[in-house]
Amino acid sequence: MFYEKLDWRYATKAMDPTKPVPEEKIERILEAIRMAPTSSGLQPFQILLVTDPALRARIAPVAWNQKQIVDGSALLVFAAWDNYTEARIDAFVDLTASLRGGLTDALKGYYDNLKATYLPRDAHVNHEHAARQAYIALGFALMAAAEEGVDATPMEGFDPAAVDEILGLGDLGLKSVLLLPLGYRDAEKDWLHGRAKVRKSRADLVIERR
Amino acid sequence: MFYEKLDWRYATKAMDPTKPVPEEKIERILEAIRMAPTSSGLQPFQILLVTDPALRARIAPVAWNQKQIVDGSALLVFAAWDNYTEARIDAFVDLTASLRGGLTDALKGYYDNLKATYLPRDAHVNHEHAARQAYIALGFALMAAAEEGVDATPMEGFDPAAVDEILGLGDLGLKSVLLLPLGYRDAEKDWLHGRAKVRKSRADLVIERR
Repeated sequence: MFYEKLDWRYATKAMDPTKPVPEEKIERILEAIRMAPTSSGLQPFQILLVTDPALRARIAPVAWNQKQIVDGSALLVFAAWDNYTEARIDAFVDLTASLRGGLTDALKGYYDNLKATYLPRDAHVNHEHAARQAYIALGFALMAAAEEGVDATPMEGFDPAAVDEILGLGDLGLKSVLLLPLGYRDAEKDWLHGRAKVRKSRADLVIERR
Repeated sequence: MFYEKLDWRYATKAMDPTKPVPEEKIERILEAIRMAPTSSGLQPFQILLVTDPALRARIAPVAWNQKQIVDGSALLVFAAWDNYTEARIDAFVDLTASLRGGLTDALKGYYDNLKATYLPRDAHVNHEHAARQAYIALGFALMAAAEEGVDATPMEGFDPAAVDEILGLGDLGLKSVLLLPLGYRDAEKDWLHGRAKVRKSRADLVIERR
């Protein structure tokens, strides 16, 4: 059941290197990421699907040697646009026109306004905004992984510049913002497995204005 | 089915003001938000559950008069911490100790290091980081809403300072980052209903490193 899966999932600390995640499960997790909504629909990020063990072995040391990166069977790297550009926004507008058989004037005006707002803005501000969108997609990925019974450990603890260098992201106008190893938990070796999940109570999370 | 729901959901543009969302559905959406993982577990945000029609009528004008804010039956406001503070981190550490019957030295050391990193940092950097975590929870909320057959429209298009003022968030050390009206689509009045969903192809989204 949907809500039980939210409890089943956790930030797995030890993955079993002998159990690869089937390709079709990885594909469905990628599909959930692809379907995640983003601000003005732009999907301002790409996903690196890294299975190459040698590449993952190079990434681990710049990510505090978190073993899931090499012990999982795939590593997803969420890489956000370094900036919004006219070409990137136009590509989305063109995609919209092709999928919907044309573009309304209202929609065209909307994206002209968006360009007028985004393009003069500092690249850092734009990247921060793009990065936030990747976090929505991370949410979708985590829930899809749980749906598939696949473990996934979201990570911010890494050196983004070093990961960008290893994966050649700079030339693509991308900056890594999140790592997500996929694999299967090794319950016996995982100190976190079976421990109580720590969450605020509903009363501490929600403020009601009735 | 899980993946069909990703297709069913969309950023509903017109909601039917005569169809309220049952309380138990809103509660389950809040529960999904509560269960969403966040960086170091801190859950650095709160959720305002605004049903008061008068309050929502004051928010709509500072959010481009997007009608879903008043036509939906509840408005969730995701409000991220304005900064990381020692008290906020200590509250999480205390919660962990109480839920797990104590704290390991390793975990205590981890949060001491976290304080050493976060507390000297600029408030803006810390707020940006907190805001990103709210976007993971938004992802969970959107999927839970789809699971419940409830429509939800994520919104960044609003004046955060004005919303903070209306809801008194400044005194709580919070800043609004996202609005999420919940309701039911009015398909006949919604120009977006039934239009093709615009998403990059898998080939344009994913870069493989095998």
